[in-house]
Amino acid sequence: MKVSVVKNILAANDRIAQENRALFDKNNLVVFNLMSSPGAGKTSLLERTIDVLKNDLKIGVIEGDIQSSHDAERIAEKGIPVVQINTGGACHLDGNMIRDTFAEFDFNELDLLVVENVGNLVCPAEFQVGEDFKVMILSVTEGEDKPSKYPLMFRESKVLLINKIDLIPYLDCSLESFKKEALKVNPDLTVFEISCKTGEGLDAWCDWLRDQVKTRK
Amino acid sequence: MKVSVVKNILAANDRIAQENRALFDKNNLVVFNLMSSPGAGKTSLLERTIDVLKNDLKIGVIEGDIQSSHDAERIAEKGIPVVQINTGGACHLDGNMIRDTFAEFDFNELDLLVVENVGNLVCPAEFQVGEDFKVMILSVTEGEDKPSKYPLMFRESKVLLINKIDLIPYLDCSLESFKKEALKVNPDLTVFEISCKTGEGLDAWCDWLRDQVKTRK
Repeated sequence: MKVSVVKNILAANDRIAQENRALFDKNNLVVFNLMSSPGAGKTSLLERTIDVLKNDLKIGVIEGDIQSSHDAERIAEKGIPVVQINTGGACHLDGNMIRDTFAEFDFNELDLLVVENVGNLVCPAEFQVGEDFKVMILSVTEGEDKPSKYPLMFRESKVLLINKIDLIPYLDCSLESFKKEALKVNPDLTVFEISCKTGEGLDAWCDWLRDQVKTRK
Repeated sequence: MKVSVVKNILAANDRIAQENRALFDKNNLVVFNLMSSPGAGKTSLLERTIDVLKNDLKIGVIEGDIQSSHDAERIAEKGIPVVQINTGGACHLDGNMIRDTFAEFDFNELDLLVVENVGNLVCPAEFQVGEDFKVMILSVTEGEDKPSKYPLMFRESKVLLINKIDLIPYLDCSLESFKKEALKVNPDLTVFEISCKTGEGLDAWCDWLRDQVKTRK
């Protein structure tokens, strides 16, 4: 019984996600779903990415949080369109929540839409929202065992950003082993090593992202 | 419909959790539910705590992970009874999973049972497992906005352990503001500032925990 309920919920969500995707495609909009543990640096990454790309690309953001609008306020300061979703307890975004934001955007005016998911290394990976691809952040402070303990998100993601590399000298771990453990779970991951604090590695990520949008146009 | 399904699941879980609790009480067993984001230091805290308390208290551990048995192996090296639960995808433990481990323990031989939940700042706080109280860890690397963004876990916990304080000099934040933000959400929290790496603050936590068990006996 329990399994069949879960299957129905996932199937209903997939249908809505496909409809969202069709609308994004019609508008030539590249959409990615940004996921990580709480505090790994999703909003900081967006702030940095917007600073680099905002003259080249028209960017919009959907912020997902259980409650509060801190993150949307941080993004709004960059002068780009942003909508906050409060899930009211739910630990992930789904296709329906994303659809509910559409009236707030003019998709014709956007090149790139970023969906910042709820901070959670488990459930967000199970729910499509209509994205072209998933991007995840792993902070080096979380430890090298995360890919083997939370494999689904690593398997579902196209890009892995290893963040806070400025802290490596103060931790008992090596950057090489983070990368190795992640590629064991998903050998197809595109990996960038970054620090949203110092800015290291962000140009390579932004170049890659700009290419994704240009290829679509 | 969706809300009523969730309510039924929670009500069924609460009933099982109460039965677990009755069995723990009958055995004079203190039980706490340990929760945090992935990589905040739950297993490291247990290793350290067992080292300090194992001559005074007979401790058992239930390890919850989506998959893998890394954490149980780490705890088993300390020579204490440990059972690994693999949730197979579920993002939290529930009363039923805990009950399924009972055949593996001799509760007469234990003073303290620790349930290490799946790394997740959201769902574990919603599901009782029969614990006396909840303990959560927040790593300083996660940022000071976590209490206001993930309030339920802070509200449900009796104890907050602020971990990785050795990294404070390399971060743009103050220990004082972590504590302040957490107490805004739950003024009754007992707070310990610790580093599982350097050992700072662990004696105060272990003294507190020893008192909880002695009060019960």
